[in-house]
Parts: sequence; C-alpha cells; structure tokens
Amino acid sequence: MAILENIKSHADLLAVPPEELDGLCAEIRAFLIESLSHTGGHLASNLGTVELSVALDRVYDPWRDRIVFDVGHQCYTHKLLTGRMAGFDRLRHSGGVSGFPKPSESEADAFIAGHASNSVSVALGMARARTQLREDYDVAALIGDGALTGGLAYEGLSNAGQSGEPMVVILNDNAMSIRRNVGGMAKLLSRMRVRPAYFEFKRRYRGTVGRVKPVYNAIHAVKEQIKGAILPANVFDDLGFYYLGPVDGHDVRALISALTWARDMRVPVLLHVITQKGRGYAPAERHPDRYHGVGPYDAASGELRPSGASFSAVFGEELARLADADERIAAITAAMADGTGLTPFERRHPERFFDAGIAEGGAAAMAAGMAKQGLRPVAAIYSTFLQRAYDQLIHDSALLGLHTVFAVDRAGLVGEDGETHHGVFDLAYLSSVPGMTVFAPASFAELRDMLHEALYERSGPCALRYPRGGEGEYVSGGALSVRALGSGTDAAIVAYGTMVNEALAAARALADEGIDARVVKPGIVCPLPAEELFSALGTEAVVFAEEVCAAGCLGERALAAAALAGRPLRARLLNLGGGVVGQGSAAELRAARGIDAAAIAKAVKELIYER
Amino acid sequence: MAILENIKSHADLLAVPPEELDGLCAEIRAFLIESLSHTGGHLASNLGTVELSVALDRVYDPWRDRIVFDVGHQCYTHKLLTGRMAGFDRLRHSGGVSGFPKPSESEADAFIAGHASNSVSVALGMARARTQLREDYDVAALIGDGALTGGLAYEGLSNAGQSGEPMVVILNDNAMSIRRNVGGMAKLLSRMRVRPAYFEFKRRYRGTVGRVKPVYNAIHAVKEQIKGAILPANVFDDLGFYYLGPVDGHDVRALISALTWARDMRVPVLLHVITQKGRGYAPAERHPDRYHGVGPYDAASGELRPSGASFSAVFGEELARLADADERIAAITAAMADGTGLTPFERRHPERFFDAGIAEGGAAAMAAGMAKQGLRPVAAIYSTFLQRAYDQLIHDSALLGLHTVFAVDRAGLVGEDGETHHGVFDLAYLSSVPGMTVFAPASFAELRDMLHEALYERSGPCALRYPRGGEGEYVSGGALSVRALGSGTDAAIVAYGTMVNEALAAARALADEGIDARVVKPGIVCPLPAEELFSALGTEAVVFAEEVCAAGCLGERALAAAALAGRPLRARLLNLGGGVVGQGSAAELRAARGIDAAAIAKAVKELIYER
Repeated sequence: MAILENIKSHADLLAVPPEELDGLCAEIRAFLIESLSHTGGHLASNLGTVELSVALDRVYDPWRDRIVFDVGHQCYTHKLLTGRMAGFDRLRHSGGVSGFPKPSESEADAFIAGHASNSVSVALGMARARTQLREDYDVAALIGDGALTGGLAYEGLSNAGQSGEPMVVILNDNAMSIRRNVGGMAKLLSRMRVRPAYFEFKRRYRGTVGRVKPVYNAIHAVKEQIKGAILPANVFDDLGFYYLGPVDGHDVRALISALTWARDMRVPVLLHVITQKGRGYAPAERHPDRYHGVGPYDAASGELRPSGASFSAVFGEELARLADADERIAAITAAMADGTGLTPFERRHPERFFDAGIAEGGAAAMAAGMAKQGLRPVAAIYSTFLQRAYDQLIHDSALLGLHTVFAVDRAGLVGEDGETHHGVFDLAYLSSVPGMTVFAPASFAELRDMLHEALYERSGPCALRYPRGGEGEYVSGGALSVRALGSGTDAAIVAYGTMVNEALAAARALADEGIDARVVKPGIVCPLPAEELFSALGTEAVVFAEEVCAAGCLGERALAAAALAGRPLRARLLNLGGGVVGQGSAAELRAARGIDAAAIAKAVKELIYER
Repeated sequence: MAILENIKSHADLLAVPPEELDGLCAEIRAFLIESLSHTGGHLASNLGTVELSVALDRVYDPWRDRIVFDVGHQCYTHKLLTGRMAGFDRLRHSGGVSGFPKPSESEADAFIAGHASNSVSVALGMARARTQLREDYDVAALIGDGALTGGLAYEGLSNAGQSGEPMVVILNDNAMSIRRNVGGMAKLLSRMRVRPAYFEFKRRYRGTVGRVKPVYNAIHAVKEQIKGAILPANVFDDLGFYYLGPVDGHDVRALISALTWARDMRVPVLLHVITQKGRGYAPAERHPDRYHGVGPYDAASGELRPSGASFSAVFGEELARLADADERIAAITAAMADGTGLTPFERRHPERFFDAGIAEGGAAAMAAGMAKQGLRPVAAIYSTFLQRAYDQLIHDSALLGLHTVFAVDRAGLVGEDGETHHGVFDLAYLSSVPGMTVFAPASFAELRDMLHEALYERSGPCALRYPRGGEGEYVSGGALSVRALGSGTDAAIVAYGTMVNEALAAARALADEGIDARVVKPGIVCPLPAEELFSALGTEAVVFAEEVCAAGCLGERALAAAALAGRPLRARLLNLGGGVVGQGSAAELRAARGIDAAAIAKAVKELIYER
C-alpha cells in the first residue's frame, strides 16, 4: 500500500506519476479484497470501478468539483482516495465509513446516494446552480447501465441534454448491473459496446483541429456531418448529449484522457465506459452477481458464508408453490429477483416472471393493468424502493380498487446499508392509499398464511411488509386477527411483525420484576383493527413498539381511535421518530433508538410507576 | 348530428360507410364546440383527436379490446361514440359524464386516467394478462408527446418494446402537449415529424408482399435491411418497437388503414400520428394553450370568461418579486407553468425558470441538487402530481436536510377533474418526510408571508399547500402560529387553509343558536404545533375540519398528542375519509362528504349535547 497510504488530498493523487497509476490500482484492489473479506460490503461493483474512480478523482477535484454517484455502492475507491482508509475496518458498521457517499462523512462526497437513477437530475441541478451563481467548478454524474432502466434517469438525461450546461455523465456499463439488465436500453447498449472505436477517431480529430477555439467552433457543423455519416445516432445523441465512447474502463490513462476531454468540452457529454464487474478477483469475475453484496468471506478462496433462512426466501418459495396451481399468479420484480427471493419462481414459471428493471413505478402500473384483466400480480419490491411507486399505488391500483399484491421486503431497519435503505416509511404511505390492506407477518408461517389470504380472501390492493433476514422466537402461524400473547393486565405491549420478539423479551424481563405484561400482536395493521385491538389490551396502560417512523404509526392511529371511542389509553409510543436513522446492525439501531426489549421494559415501568 | 346520434355500439360505428366518416367527424366537432361552451372542459385536446378517436373505436372494439388512454382528457369523442352523448350536458359535473376515462362509467373505458405517462405500462400489463390467460383481444395505448417527457413512459416503452407482446402504442404528437414540450424527446420528435413519408413506403411494400404470412416472414430480414438503409434509427426502434409513421392525424381513412396494419402486425408497434391541437375551431387553433382546459365560453366568438384571482397567481407574482432581489431563487415546474402561476416568473427571470416536463421526480431531484449548491429552488407542483416525487422528497431532500421549497398547488378538492386530481393525500405523505415543514396558508396574504418564511426563516424541506381558486372571507396575513378566531368556550373548530372559511361560517351559524364556538387555525400543520394548539382551544370539545384524507390528518395526530400529554379531548374528526372522492364542484363535494359549514355545525352540536 506504499502509494495508496500517502494519498489524503487531491494534490497527493495528482502527484502520483502516471506510470505508477496501475500500481495504485493494484494496491486498491488488493486492499478491497482483503478488507471486505472481514467486513463484507459491495465487492464486485467496486472491483469493477477502481480505474474509473482513480481517473475521476484525478481529473476532478472531489472537494471542489461535484462528482455525483448513482446508487453509490461503487464509491469505495473514491473513499480510499479521499482520506477514509482507516474507517474501512468498520465499513458499513456503526462508527465506520458508510458503504454509500455521505456529505456528512466528507466534503469530497458531493451528494447522498442509495436509490438509483437520480444522479443526472441532481448533477443538472448542481450545474445550473454553478452557472446561476457564476461559480466555476465542474460537475459529473457516474451512473451504471442498470440505473438507466429507471425512468428517473431518462428524465434527467432528457433535461440535461437540452440544458447546454457543461457537465459529464459517465455511463459505467458493466452489462449487468446487479444481475442482468432488462428492457430496450440494455439491448441498445449491447449493440453500442461492439461498435468501432469512434472515440479514437474523435480524439485524433480534436487533437488536430480542436486546439484553437475559433477553428473548433467554425468546423463544428462539418464535424457533425462526419459524425452523422460514420456513427449511427443513438438515444444519447437524440437527447442532446455529445456521446463519447466506448472507452476501456480498465485503462486508467485512457480514462484520464477521455474524462479530461469530456470535462473540457463545456457541453453536456455522455462518456460511455465499459467495465467488468468483479475485475481482478477470480471468484467475483466468475460470479459477479453472487459477489455483488457480500458478508465476510475467505479472501484466498472467495468462499462465502451461507446465508440463513429469510422471509424473502420463504415468500419466493411460497409464491412459486401457489403459482403451480394457479395460472393467474404473475410475479414482478424491479431488478431484485435474487434479493426478493423470486429466483425459484422464475425457474418454475419463467413465462409469468417479469423483471421491470429499476422501474418501480412502471412495475406497479403494469401490475394494475394485469389485475384489471384477470391476473393476480404480486410485485416484490423493497420498502424503501416502493416509495418510487407511491403515485402508482394510488392512481393505478387504488382508485379502481384493483387487486394487486405488493410484497414489501426489507420493511423496517435493514442495518448496514443505512438511511437510504431502511424501510421505515411504508406504514405511513401505504396507510394513505385508499382501500389498502397491510399485513405484518411476524413469522415465516404467518407470511405464508397472509400471502394466501391476500391472494384469495381479499380485494383491492394488499401489501405484506416483512423484514430483511429471518424470524425470531415467534414462529406461530395463522394470526390475521389481533392476538394476545399472555394474559397480564399490568400493561400491554403492542407490537407487530418481528418486533413481537422484542416485546416478548421485554415481557419476560418484566415478569422477572413481578410485572405481568401481555403482548398484543395485530396481524393486519391497516386498516386499524381498532375494536379488536382495544378488546385484547386488558389494561389502559399500553406501550406501542414499532420499527417505523413516527408519522402514521399504528400507535398514533390507535390513540386517536381510542380517544374518539371515548376509551382513553395511558400510552407510550416507541418508534423511530421523525428523523433519519443511520447505519449499524438492526439490533444496535433498535437499542440506540429505544425500541428494543430493554427500552420497551423501561417504558412499561414508567407507565406503571407514574400511575 | 344525424350520423353521431345513431352510434351506440361498435357495430353502429362499423356500419357508417367510409365516405360518411368525414361527416361524422364534422358532427363531433360541432357538438364539442357547442356543448363545451356551456359546461367547460378540455376543448383543444379533444378537437385535435376527433379523427384519431373515430379510427381507434372503429379498428378496435372498445368493449372487447382494451384502449388505454394516457392522461385521458382527450377521451370525449370516445365517450360520444360509446353511448354517453346524453351525459355531456353535465360534463365533469356531479351526475354527468367524467372528463376522464372511467371503467365505472362504461366498460368501453379500459382503465382510469388522469396522471400522465402510465398508459404504456398499464397496456403492457393487460397484453401480458391476455397472453397468459390465452384470450384474444387487442391492446392499444394512446399517449401524447407531452407524456413522453415522463420517465414512467420510458419505463413502459422500454419494457413493452422488449416484451414481444402484440400491442400498439399510438403517439398523438401535437408538438405542444399543454403548452410546449421540453427536453430531448421534443427535439427528436420535431426532427421526425418532417421526415419523408416512410409509412407510405411501408404500406406499399406490405401491400405487395405482405398478404401471404409465410412470404411476409421470410422476407422480414431483407425488409429490416431496407429499413436500416432508408430510415434513421430512432429511440422507439432502439427500445424494440416497430416504428410506423408519421401519419396525418386528421385523415380518418389513412388512420384506419394504419391502425389496422399496426394492430395486425402482432409485435409491439409504435404508430406516430401528427395532430393539431384545437383543430377546426379558429380560436383554439390560434391559442391551443389558452383553450386547453376552459370554463364556459361564447361558442361563436370563442370569448372566454376571465378567471378570478387565485392562490396560483399570487404565488407566481410573489415569487417573481422575491427573485428580483435574490438571484439564488430558481423556479421549477413540471409542465404546468401557466397552471401554477409561474408565467410572470418565466418572463422576468427566464434564466432561472426551469420546466422539467411531466417529470415530477426529476424536478424534485434537480431541486435538491440546486439546494445543495446554494440556490433556493421553489418547485411548484400540483398536490396530486407531487405524489410522483414522494421518494425524491425523502431520498434527495430530506436525508440531507436540504432547503428545498415545494409550492403544492391544487391541495384539497379540485372539483370537476375528480378523483385523479384531488390533492387529498399530501398532508399524509408530506408528514412522513423527515424534517418537512408544511405551511397551510388560508389567504393570499398568508401565502405571501409563508413563502417568505419558507425561503428565509426555515431550513430543510418546506411545502406550502394551497387550493385551486381563490381566498374566501378570511383575508388576514401573518399567522404562522396557531390563531384563535373568537373566544368561545363551548367548542373549538380546528381548521387550516381555506377550510377556515367553512369553520367561520359554522361558528356564525352556531352563534345564532346560542353556541359560542371559537375557530382555531394553525398556520403550520407539520410538525404538529401541539402545545400551541392545545393552549388555543379553550375547551376540550373540539371538531377538526379538514379537506384531506383521514390517514395522517391533523386531527388524528392532535388526538394522539393530546392523549400522550394526558390532556384528553372530546373530538369529532371531519375529513374526506379513506375512500375515493369523485367529481363535482368543491362546494358540492364538501357538503356530500360532510366537511362543510353545515356539517361542522352539526358535529359541534352533537359534541355539546352528548356531554
């Protein structure tokens, strides 16, 4: 790490002699492979962008210029080059560096990232601010080919291309974003990748005539004619970008040259860079999807630890099983077939499996069209990403009362991915959707039961919210209704989903202190089962413990309903509040935010002793 | 109306001899111009699609096949051709036909519409349902060029193009959707419009060799080569569509021929049709934007009634005035510059006025990028359309605490546009956004004050929600805090925004009966000003009267806060509930939904007499 260790500033990186850049890249790769084997992280995407990141941070000054990452999990090299190497021993854990760009972590991170396809619009806003305020920094967006499947990227490209703003969009094209690409854009890119090296032609051309600005301008029209003759128009040209590429994304000096040129053109430029996911680490090159996001692994062999049973896997298997007997069931994913457990479904029912790309809105609208014509579509989308489809839930499903089913995976705290990925808003936004039923399974058995219920016993839009990972001590099935666990009357702890495990642990701890609290667990959390809930409480002292944001939480709605029913409760609402929750393990975060068993027990005692 | 009057079914339309179709179109145009002069409605867009609608409803059987309208305000001719002529005397009013497609109104309406850009995804879902269930109807989507600025349309096109599903997307290209088009797609379409008539070539080609299916298939590869040689590739080809066009959208027989051919190709086809907005009515041809959506007008002269003062106009003027003195202010619209009152801003500050197209998500992400770099962006977006940007509010603004300002126009009931356009979810979804401040101005003066407050006295994301139309009896300014109007202690009526006028009217009616109720009006509705609110009530008998959906309403949050504060209230919550609100004037809807002055007074009396 002789070169890497000495880079703390942009000047340090500029001081590396060109002939040592390949050595720097080798050091970074070695560091990533070793360091991530202990912490886990997004391995394959970062191995694929080492040279591109070195070039970006050299051509741009990340503290002065603005490099906007899309999705952002490919930012590790950038973090290493901007003084954050020491934080990698706790990468993605509390106290360590984030796995995503964070302006709060370093001013070298221009913007936050986590969701896909926003970078071009964000960068356009920055470029326009720069121009309006007459400042003179440069702006670039780094976007993967997968993110181009999102309509938000198209909105950004369409506006940026016509803006005339000097800015560079770097398309990091690894032909397989998380898994494989879908849709028309993927096919188009696959054709463009094999084109002759137009970029080489352009560079020579500009080398000859482009040095003198007036000459460059005068000859522009002629140049465009030449370009039209040898380069088939592509969608980026159509949208107003000056298209450059494709460039070999593992040739760091070619990248520096291309980026410098793109930066200095002073128009919207799209630079198409071809990278290989997992580059330089044989296991990840062979299986880039398997090494996309990993836990700790054996650095020498690449051996991954097997992951345990999960709600996602149970969902995917159960849906495939139900579909065996019902040809109306169709499964939809937004570029997360593996993550949502739908791979078995795809294998068994390929003709009814649809990957819409990173296009949650389009996926939800398509599901509504399917439901209108007699299918039973089930769209499995992470809670935080389903925010993108909020309007389609209302407009396309709810206004017509269509029977669409949403499997809301990663509901609640997701842990290491942090604030952009926690699924803590879904209860609030789903509750506002007319006619929406929200199920909160607390166990694998309940997930199976509720999936059947949602498909066969309900009408209108339905959502099942369940967390990342597996079940806890509560493994019973069946409970759609409100279930009282225990018969204590000193206090009631209302919890749903896997938070029931924290509630049960709290009740046990309280029992040790002679306090007899029951746990009350609703299976359906929207619409609020008010009467059932009130009947099950057995006391007016109630703690609501929820892994969601404060707005629209079940406790708030229950307190309002109780007041209207003339049945006042003495209550504490434990939830994630109105702020932003950062990274760390889910257990750490529950403790820090005061919604774990200890916090629940404490709240119960406060309620009781204040009486 | 000799021809039109006799058309009640698909068979009736098929029975019209081809040579009488032009006469039918003339009758429809005359009917629309006369009928809408009494009711108002979307005039220019419907005049532009008369021939296209006749062709669509003739080539497709709207009861059997599925014609999916995008936005949908161009559906009037379709409604006339499917047995709904009689309902046009109350078009868009309660009891009359809707101005948008509604499956509840007729099975000839395949889907709901109102928001833009969803039609291709919906139609794709329908086509896939058809294929999966082995049914044999045809599917078409009718989308305008304006809707192509939305990323959702791109998601649909990208997936549909690659699906192989037989379906036709008809691009109704009038080069100016509501006002004018923006972004790269608009420039592209403008180039395509003037291409030589490729369609004519194709038709002759197919006429010769295409009649025999095996011959047609065998020659396909050759054909593609010819096509490649004479037709520049365009984005629709790139996305996997078979592109046909452009076709003259006012030649009904050419349209029938082209549509029939497109339908029978059995692949995804994009048919590009050129129409003229306002066609056949001189005032609307001259000023298509002015005649986009109109109130009653004089049919002979086209004279429109002047519209009164509005919150939108006050907002636009005030923002332009503030921007005179502050170069950091930028204004953003999503294709609604006129509707949101931003035209004066555009005139005075064109370099800081940005129309993102129908791209609310892109607009919100761009605003966040601007705020990060020191601008003060103000994005004016209708409440119902801002649902599209929910994720960007959280991810791009709130997680970084960026100071973006959203002018949430058309908040509350919008009246005649009905369920797709009411702005009744914004308080629910905005309240869940971390750090969001929501202002609810009740008067023009308050809107001015609160806009200044949001721009200069706050940090983090801010929203101002205000209704369609103008102010009522309440015209005071200044009140950011909770203001008590009156000092009655028999009951308190909590209302914000222009609902304060209903509350004041209720209080007067109650005073006539000897009940002394005060009106309590918060200016900021999120975060909940709980202590201030409780102090201002003066009683525990409280009616909350709100023009929003039940979930996340202020009353619910206030009751929960009161319960937690050990300050129980006896309350009634009057709001729009959890269902769907249809069309009618705002006053009619408030009465029907029980949130008008009479309903408030009744609720107060119930509260008092139950004591």
